[in-house]
Formats: sequence, structure tokens, C-alpha cells
Amino acid sequence: MRAALYNGPHSITVGDRPDPVVTAPTDAVVRVVLGCVCGSDLWYYRGESPHALGPIGHEFIGVVDAVGPDVRGLAAGDFVVAPFTYCDGICAICRAGVPSQCLNGGSFGNHGIDGGQGEAVRVPFAATTLVNVPGSGHSDATMRSLAALSDVMCTGHHAAVSAGVRPGSVVAVIGDGAVGLCAIIAARRLGAARIIALSGNPARQALAREFGATDILADRGDAAAVAVKEMTQGVGVDAALECVGTGQSLATALAIARPGSTVGAIGAPHGIDFSVMDSVVYRNIGLRGGVAPARTYISELLTDVLEGRINPGRVFDFETTLDGIVEAYDAMNERRAVKALVRVGTV
Amino acid sequence: MRAALYNGPHSITVGDRPDPVVTAPTDAVVRVVLGCVCGSDLWYYRGESPHALGPIGHEFIGVVDAVGPDVRGLAAGDFVVAPFTYCDGICAICRAGVPSQCLNGGSFGNHGIDGGQGEAVRVPFAATTLVNVPGSGHSDATMRSLAALSDVMCTGHHAAVSAGVRPGSVVAVIGDGAVGLCAIIAARRLGAARIIALSGNPARQALAREFGATDILADRGDAAAVAVKEMTQGVGVDAALECVGTGQSLATALAIARPGSTVGAIGAPHGIDFSVMDSVVYRNIGLRGGVAPARTYISELLTDVLEGRINPGRVFDFETTLDGIVEAYDAMNERRAVKALVRVGTV
Repeated sequence: MRAALYNGPHSITVGDRPDPVVTAPTDAVVRVVLGCVCGSDLWYYRGESPHALGPIGHEFIGVVDAVGPDVRGLAAGDFVVAPFTYCDGICAICRAGVPSQCLNGGSFGNHGIDGGQGEAVRVPFAATTLVNVPGSGHSDATMRSLAALSDVMCTGHHAAVSAGVRPGSVVAVIGDGAVGLCAIIAARRLGAARIIALSGNPARQALAREFGATDILADRGDAAAVAVKEMTQGVGVDAALECVGTGQSLATALAIARPGSTVGAIGAPHGIDFSVMDSVVYRNIGLRGGVAPARTYISELLTDVLEGRINPGRVFDFETTLDGIVEAYDAMNERRAVKALVRVGTV
Repeated sequence: MRAALYNGPHSITVGDRPDPVVTAPTDAVVRVVLGCVCGSDLWYYRGESPHALGPIGHEFIGVVDAVGPDVRGLAAGDFVVAPFTYCDGICAICRAGVPSQCLNGGSFGNHGIDGGQGEAVRVPFAATTLVNVPGSGHSDATMRSLAALSDVMCTGHHAAVSAGVRPGSVVAVIGDGAVGLCAIIAARRLGAARIIALSGNPARQALAREFGATDILADRGDAAAVAVKEMTQGVGVDAALECVGTGQSLATALAIARPGSTVGAIGAPHGIDFSVMDSVVYRNIGLRGGVAPARTYISELLTDVLEGRINPGRVFDFETTLDGIVEAYDAMNERRAVKALVRVGTV
């Protein structure tokens, strides 16, 4: 089969990989229909994080091609969303509600396991990993939103859930990337009364408003913190959603968080050189977040996608095929695109 | 009146202060019966944290001597527990449930406001700060436990509540100071099934067991982390209570926390030179804690103290009068004492 391959920083090619097959009785093989490029893919593309050479891409939806003898509830031909990590569903961590940290789990498109930027993927623990999508003949808009459930929408949702967004909350979202934009969808869905989106980019501001942002703030850093404090009578927000991962964005999130609130942190940390403990202890600011338990969230969000109540697929403003994958990375890396969709196969 | 006065590192004397009087209509003046020395008092005593010169001590119980015209529900002669911070009860932060971060609040025994290591205290916002203790003729054991409600028991409780301890939780408590010991009481009270106390001190180990610790671990640092991981089949604990505040203790707490759990952090941060964000994001470890909302917790814990179900006063293993206050600091500073009680007046 054909797949995108990582050869090192700024070097991705499309080449051949062995066709994945069922190797364990709990495996399934999935033919990829739509794959995506994630903001976190850019870190290794830029050479700022390590990544195993070989197949890449942890987000995909597709059609089950084959299942092992122990895979219950799934059959060849089923249309599925894959969370970006696989999980056995029975370990102590999965049972504690965090399948994204499964003791026997892992991520697609890394360490030799095929990923969503290729034609097919072997999915370990298929029954507890894949989520079956009911119905057929989904519109392209729905298909795009289903692809967004693989990671980006669940990750935005995790920021909002971790920060405890509830009906009436005043929320700020730091980061206007695809995850930040999805965090706006999530905050609105959870009933936030006010959603302040930090973005200086007109196209992203428009999408933020479409998703439910009530206020747009073009400032960054200290200026943004001052502005949000002014907008909240000096109190700060009930939930700051940190969707970037840099020291500056984290500092902004901590500065605008109301004492007693929790910063929902899902940005992969880069260049954070300060301790947050003074904020945690002296200002009673909590921190929670991490790798989204997407398997759990997909089931929760699926109906809203299928019934059109949320449209996270709107974050894809660039699309290509496997052959154009390098251009997809470049477009995102240069911030010409919010998020790239890769059309790999058909349902 | 007489009061302990901070003159700089390692210099505390007992001297005269003006008798506090009602200055605002919401004030009360409280005659101190029992004061305490807090572990956090040692930071400035050692010169490791700044502190205003003058009166000190933020923990006390006492008898109301006078009230301003706007103080409802309190009268001269009432016996009260003072939370270590005062609060107006009506600001946005108080209404959000965090009176310890009151926008108009502050701490006793600092910035010129009298404290518990003196004969009397002016208490701002008395009606929303002080907690009336029902009954009279309380035993000395009960009186000591009431004094512990002023800060240390509430702070230990805050570590447990912040970490989400619930029936069946496996808990580890890092720190065998008075707060760590009270965190054990709190964890047991909240229904923890297993409580691992980290302590290398035989007397503190005994108190830890009395309070409900099921396992004692004398190791520290990496060795403690390895041991706790072994005791929990590699999974880690459901709730790590960080009751020290140093880089080592925080690192231990993060290392033994189960993915998806929250570290309850109440130790005043000192010498923490690393970012916790890798743990937050890549291991889904939350952090929550801070300055305990003691006003709220005192009401919650008071009945358990009065009915003898919890005995946090057992942490006081040293007692003196105002004249012996320096020896109280020295005993705690040299770890000869867990916590010192200061007998100031009578009911």
C-alpha cells in the first residue's frame, strides 16, 4: 500500500508499506477514507520533537476490511472513526476512564504502526478502540466532521471538560488553531454564557464567531491578559482553555484564570521554563487536561455530529490527496491553513 | 496588649501592641484563647520568604470581645474559630466558593493586622469570617482540635478534596508535617481504602497510623516513587497529596500519580525549578489545591471535631505560652515538634 513516510525534519515522502494484516486475534484492519494532519504533526516536521521514522498520521476514519476472531461488535464493511490512540479497554487506567493512557495502548502513525496518512491501518484492540458510525451515505460535510472526531474535536472538548465548563461559564480560549476553534464548539455545547476567543487572524476570528465565540480579542501575551481582566471586572474567567502549549500561552491562561478555576491544558508543552506552582498554590488555579480520552468522547459527540448540531469539520480549510501530503504540511506550518484533510479512499 | 512580633529572620520577640478595636462596622475584636505556629511561619522565620515586620500568627480560636454594628449572628462572649484568612463573603471569588482568595480579604498576622500569636485580633468582615462554636465547657482535647481547624486540618482537607479522594481511593500522602498528617485524617474521612504515608520519623509514623494510614513508607524521592509504583502494580495512586512544597516532593507526587488523577497540592512552593506541564499533558495528571477555603471547611468539619470523630488536635506535640513563642518556633524549625500550640488566654 501507499503511505506518507517521515524521513526526518522537513522530509516527508509518499512510498510503499506492506499491506497491514490481522496479526493478533483482537486486531482489525481499516482502509482509510479520510486522514488528517494534526497541529502536533508539525512539531516533528519542524524538527522540534522526536518522531520515529516511517508511517505517520494519527487521525483517520475508514472502513473495516478484516477483523481478528476475537473482535466483537465489528465486521468487515463497517464504517468507523478511530480515536488517535488505541486502548485495550480493560487495564486499570482504561477502567479509571482514561483510555488515552491505556497501559497497553499507543498512538497510530508512530513506532512502526501505520497511521492515517496512508491507505490502511492495523488497529490493535479494535473492539475497544474503533467507534462504529451508524447510517450510510453521509454528506461530505458530515464526513469531514466525523474525521474531526478522531482527534481535534475531542481534544478541544477535553480542554473544556478538564476546565469544568458548565452552563453560564465565562470562558477564554487561548489559541486559534484547529484545537482552539474546536474548544469553542465544546464550550458552547457545554453551555458557556460567554466565550472570549484570542485570535488576531480574520479568517480564524470568523470561524471562532461561527462556532460560538461571543468576544474576539486580537491581543496576545500581557496585553491579552490585561484586556480579559478588564472584560471580567478584574475577576478573570471561569475557565481558561490553553490550546497552544507555549510558555506565553500558558502564562496568559494562568493570568486570566479566576482563582478557584481550572486551566484546561491540552497544548503540547514547548519551551515552558517556569513553574506553575505559585499559581496553583497562591492563586488556587488548577491545571487539568492532557491527551484526550477520544474513545470516550467520540461516543459522546457522535450524535451531535450526525444530527448536525456541531460542525467541527469546518476547521478543514485545506484538502489534498496522499500525493499532496507535503503541501498539506507546508500549508499548516506556514499558517496558510488551519487544518488539512487528506482524501485517501472511498467508503 | 502583648503579642509576638517578627523583627526579621530568626528574630521574634514578645512586645506591646495597641489593643485592637472595632474600626469598621463589620469588624469584631476577638480575645485569643489558643494560637498556633504554622509550618508556613517557618519560611519567614528562616528568612526564606518575605514577611512584614510586626505581628504574626494566622491561626487562632478565641472569644468575641466586641462587634461592630453591622456584624450579624455574632455577639460578645461567643466562642469562635477563625479561619486563617478573612473574607467578605460577597465578592465574585467568595461567591465562586473560594473565600481564601476573597478580593477584599487577607491573612491574619501580616501587613499590620494582628494575629493569633498575640492577645487579641481585629477581625474584618467578622460575620462572614468567624465560625461560631456551639456548646461550652469543651475538653482540652476538643479545644486543641478546634484550634487545628483554623488552618492545618482545613489545609490537609483541601489537599484531599482537591485531589478528589472518594470512597475506595488509593491515596499517598507526601509530607509527614502537621498538614500531611491532617491530610491522612481527611483522606480517611472521605473514605479512602488505602492510605500510604511517606515518613521516616517513628513518632510521625505512629501518628500517621493512628490517623488512618494503612501503609508507611520510609523512602523518599525516587526510591519512594519506585516503591509506591510497586505497591500499586505499576498504576500509581488515585490521589497524591503533596503537603511539602519542594521540588523533590512535587516530583514524587507527580511520579506516583495515576494517569487521569489529580495531585492535591497545598505545600507552599519553594525551589521548584521544573515545569509540570509534561506531566499534565503527556500523563494526564491534574494539579489542584492552594490556599484552603477554611471558612467553608470549618463549618463542614466542626461537627466531626465536636463529636470526636476526628482528632486533628493530636498534631500538637508541643505547647507553650506567649512568653515561650521563640522556643515553639525553634522546636518546629529543628523538627523536634510537629506543631506548637500557644496558650494565650482562657475561654
